[in-house]
Amino acid sequence: MEHLSVSEAQRVVLESVATFSAEQVKLEQALGRVLAEEVRANRDQPPYDISAMDGYSLRSADLGTIPATLEIIEDIKAGDLPGKTLASGQCARIMTGAPLPPGADAVIRVEDTNALPDNRVQINQSVKRGNDIRRLGENMRNGEVVLTPGTEITPGVIGVLATVKRAQVQVHRRPRVAILSTGDELEGLDEPIDLNKIPDANSYALMAQTQALGIEPVLLGIARDDPDELARYLQRGLEYDVLLVSGGTSVGVHDYVRPTIEALGVQMLFWRVAMKPGHPVAFGKAGEKIIFGLPGNPVSSMVCFGEFVAPALRRMMGHARIHRRTVEARLTHNVKHQPGRTEFIRVMLAQEDEGYAATSTGAQGSGMLLSMARADGLAVLPADCNGLTAGSMVTVQLLDGTVFQDDAGFRE
Amino acid sequence: MEHLSVSEAQRVVLESVATFSAEQVKLEQALGRVLAEEVRANRDQPPYDISAMDGYSLRSADLGTIPATLEIIEDIKAGDLPGKTLASGQCARIMTGAPLPPGADAVIRVEDTNALPDNRVQINQSVKRGNDIRRLGENMRNGEVVLTPGTEITPGVIGVLATVKRAQVQVHRRPRVAILSTGDELEGLDEPIDLNKIPDANSYALMAQTQALGIEPVLLGIARDDPDELARYLQRGLEYDVLLVSGGTSVGVHDYVRPTIEALGVQMLFWRVAMKPGHPVAFGKAGEKIIFGLPGNPVSSMVCFGEFVAPALRRMMGHARIHRRTVEARLTHNVKHQPGRTEFIRVMLAQEDEGYAATSTGAQGSGMLLSMARADGLAVLPADCNGLTAGSMVTVQLLDGTVFQDDAGFRE
Repeated sequence: MEHLSVSEAQRVVLESVATFSAEQVKLEQALGRVLAEEVRANRDQPPYDISAMDGYSLRSADLGTIPATLEIIEDIKAGDLPGKTLASGQCARIMTGAPLPPGADAVIRVEDTNALPDNRVQINQSVKRGNDIRRLGENMRNGEVVLTPGTEITPGVIGVLATVKRAQVQVHRRPRVAILSTGDELEGLDEPIDLNKIPDANSYALMAQTQALGIEPVLLGIARDDPDELARYLQRGLEYDVLLVSGGTSVGVHDYVRPTIEALGVQMLFWRVAMKPGHPVAFGKAGEKIIFGLPGNPVSSMVCFGEFVAPALRRMMGHARIHRRTVEARLTHNVKHQPGRTEFIRVMLAQEDEGYAATSTGAQGSGMLLSMARADGLAVLPADCNGLTAGSMVTVQLLDGTVFQDDAGFRE
Repeated sequence: MEHLSVSEAQRVVLESVATFSAEQVKLEQALGRVLAEEVRANRDQPPYDISAMDGYSLRSADLGTIPATLEIIEDIKAGDLPGKTLASGQCARIMTGAPLPPGADAVIRVEDTNALPDNRVQINQSVKRGNDIRRLGENMRNGEVVLTPGTEITPGVIGVLATVKRAQVQVHRRPRVAILSTGDELEGLDEPIDLNKIPDANSYALMAQTQALGIEPVLLGIARDDPDELARYLQRGLEYDVLLVSGGTSVGVHDYVRPTIEALGVQMLFWRVAMKPGHPVAFGKAGEKIIFGLPGNPVSSMVCFGEFVAPALRRMMGHARIHRRTVEARLTHNVKHQPGRTEFIRVMLAQEDEGYAATSTGAQGSGMLLSMARADGLAVLPADCNGLTAGSMVTVQLLDGTVFQDDAGFRE
């Protein structure tokens, strides 16, 4: 039985998936998707030299002596077109974004002036030619490529798309994901409590991990330990692009999943990865479709989702960034580790003057789902590590819920 | 005119908002929301001592000599109840999650055994009492508080909620947000191109920033520079919990927004913040409702959303973590800064052996929306800073699109 390393298993998974084809969505639905087209500017922006401030457009040469008094010959708002040319000693009141009048070569902001009677203004500071002017085409030139295929659509990108008037945009299609739990011992969310059973947490934790990637999955329910029932469920699951099956991948005698999966024409590419938790994680493909066999244990299943499923789903959606962000953190205590497998330790993060400090959430038993709920990240212990002492630096993968923090965290 | 610091302005905003009341949502819709109730375990988990491995449950005292041969008297699957008590020399085949039979005090995993004929098994390694057993109530005790009010609902929390069979859960209500752009110079997304106008990027960038927080805002459109039209739009906007108005807050003579807002009974609490970009940002309240006057410039408007609007919306939703996550990064080049205002510089991040490196996206003109689309974060330069040299450490607030990264980023 092959025991791949985490990166070998990730490579096998990623080599089995391709980026999906494109579909058109409205700008309102594009956040978090990935551009499947090149986007070009459709005009010069700004369309002419405009003011960067509310103030006065003027001829900088008129400010040889300060204070200077100028005559206001016009009022120019954004959206206006200037009607007059400035002569020496003249200026035009101008709003941010409004076009400069002919003759003007600089703008002075209103704070550096004093209004005078009779359409005159006192200028209290000299400015250089070009001051507070935004130049024609400074932001984008007509026809210029502003966004390339593969760009993740963030709010900033949405702003750019609106700027080039894209009410619709081509993005990569999202995979359709089905989730199946297996095992006679599982109790469904809507079933009454049976103390001899285990509530099905996996279906919902995996659902939420999938939702966090912007994909609404379909829950197929619980397949009992019966080969025919399992085959029916798996067949339904293989109608989707991605099937996540949890439980049933153990090496025990009651394992119907493996033979049943293979009988359905799925080519299994691995069954085990040298990691903890998550050791019994399997992966296969059937044509363009892929199937993950995740551990029955919710913590293991969630860790495997993060390491293998999320990168695959994000690759399908066209993302270049497919792995969880990592930060370096100082361990606040010793951590034991037996060499052999890469270990993912649930940790809480705190910010200190020198950076992040990581503290274990406590007992790391893979049944401890509560500790997953409390964790900010997974500290990664390399397979060859013999344990780490307090103060050592460790790489931590950030989990969901860490995009924000309690305090602003900067000196202002 | 008051010029608050960023933190003073944040304090004014946060003192003006309260956490919203609760509503019930289905578990499928709970991700990213905040718990408004205490959640308790509804049974012991595990409900009895169970096996943590696929293997054999046995009496550890029987393994005095290794290898040892034991008689298999039963097969116990998860969901079964054991029927027999182990005597000396006996064991039961057991699956992960299955209850231990009376008499057993340890489990050995199947990998450390060899099957023998006639219902016997050879055990190749001794184990301690308690080995690979998960104890009754180890994960949660019946009645124990497992989740407290204020907990952000991450996938791990969803798993815990499913474990305690919560198909519905009480969460804090989300604010209803309306977005309004103002200015004659603006061109709507559905309007034809007019080279003398500026496309309305703000409405859509603010929409996307709001969506990124899990709130679907309402776009009110563009109010022209007419006091009556503006008053009508503002009145509609004040039907929502939060109104974001962009443009129209400048000090110029064409500023109708300020008097019109105050005439509608809004108490304005600040008009200026000592920051760059984003200087002309205003905030007010009308009873329980709040209104932000954001700069007309998209970059400034987006930065102000991140510093003031997002923390307010997250506070309303019940989040403890309301500020963007920060990391420390090494500047790859000199940065100029004139003391006076806190400056937010758009940067790209790269990972190096020693941590993050930050590089400016280039020209920082506040019209440069493209640079916002390219940025991974905002490097924060304190107001009293005289500029920084290459190699200095700087605090960077992470922007959207940084939850994932290109590479796994850990040694395995």
